[in-house]
Amino acid sequence: MSRGTNGSGHGSGCDNGAPKAVVARLSLYLRHLEAMLKAGDETVSSNRLGAALEITDAQVRKDLANFGQFGYPGIGYRVAELRASIRSVLGTNRDWNVALIGVGNIGRALLGYSGFSERGFHIVAAFDNSPEVIGQRFGAIEVHPLADLPKLARELDLELAVLAVPAAGLEDAMAAVAAAGLAGILNFAPMQPRVPSDLSVVSVDLGQHLEQLAFQVTKRRTVPTLEASA
Amino acid sequence: MSRGTNGSGHGSGCDNGAPKAVVARLSLYLRHLEAMLKAGDETVSSNRLGAALEITDAQVRKDLANFGQFGYPGIGYRVAELRASIRSVLGTNRDWNVALIGVGNIGRALLGYSGFSERGFHIVAAFDNSPEVIGQRFGAIEVHPLADLPKLARELDLELAVLAVPAAGLEDAMAAVAAAGLAGILNFAPMQPRVPSDLSVVSVDLGQHLEQLAFQVTKRRTVPTLEASA
Repeated sequence: MSRGTNGSGHGSGCDNGAPKAVVARLSLYLRHLEAMLKAGDETVSSNRLGAALEITDAQVRKDLANFGQFGYPGIGYRVAELRASIRSVLGTNRDWNVALIGVGNIGRALLGYSGFSERGFHIVAAFDNSPEVIGQRFGAIEVHPLADLPKLARELDLELAVLAVPAAGLEDAMAAVAAAGLAGILNFAPMQPRVPSDLSVVSVDLGQHLEQLAFQVTKRRTVPTLEASA
Repeated sequence: MSRGTNGSGHGSGCDNGAPKAVVARLSLYLRHLEAMLKAGDETVSSNRLGAALEITDAQVRKDLANFGQFGYPGIGYRVAELRASIRSVLGTNRDWNVALIGVGNIGRALLGYSGFSERGFHIVAAFDNSPEVIGQRFGAIEVHPLADLPKLARELDLELAVLAVPAAGLEDAMAAVAAAGLAGILNFAPMQPRVPSDLSVVSVDLGQHLEQLAFQVTKRRTVPTLEASA
């Protein structure tokens, strides 16, 4: 069986040919290139870019080689050019209109989260099924009934949805997003959804992040470091 | 140079010997094992566990082999036993007391997030430097000035901190957490912090998750799937 472009954000750790961890690091490179641009730096070495992420220069070169040839011998990378190239690879060299589905605690926090719009992701409409929330305004964003998603998706050119619904409401919300023709979902519900084949889904499981932290802290306390035992 | 137990949650993709992506999958296995326990299943095959995560049975066996020998020939895995083993590996076979630092939008959402306490992570105190927030109560949680962190860390046995502070306040907050003797940080600020060597840090960059989604959607639209071209 050949490997297709499964859009699921978990699983084998690979999507569309590039290892998921590498794609995640593209975001981190981008953050540092943006900081360097602000500081007026015109070029950067793989060594310096690696130091910022605590990885080797060889790993930086290998990561970037997945997507093209970006460096110049004796110069390194041109900061503005590499930034533009990575944004093009990630698909963030353009703006995306985003629907927020679920306006509870998490949803309200996301409406106020500057990290989305700074990167071209604009929440332009919010949806909920609760009568107490429908019609409320949060800044410029009005909360609509979920049944209005298909109509507003066309009118507002919505492409992505951020799902901040309880686990019990997840499947219905995903079906509504798929039926409205959106292309991708960022999911905050603490469960792994069954993904309709025409949707890309990235799941953010906040509890899982704490589990990863617990793993690191526990290992640190129980396993002596190689340095310490050398 | 030997490889130490660097606690940073990003970088090489590896921490403490186990690939980061594998440790992330342990959390996913755990979710499915919990669902199976609820459904009354006593055993599960690597095939079925893999199907739930959209990965192969071979990958499941390889993942788990990083941490021990868990399967039984002809039986598969015993659900309750594997669940207990994974929780032990992750360090979530016990409770953790957590400090929330920063009680803005994100912080308030996290105070109401059930996904933490369900897995044994209990936010038992909140801290902020803003006079308008200090002294407020959210449910059972009172907001304290950040200066009280060392005292309350001892009194409440705080081990982990969830940082939901603006990027500008991140370094100060991390220093305060390190000085108070906590062991790990879950960071929601949209930047890569410099990590004191005695702290484990896992960063949650919500904008980065949307970038990963944009990458998947963009690739899907531009690259024909192997199935389609076969």
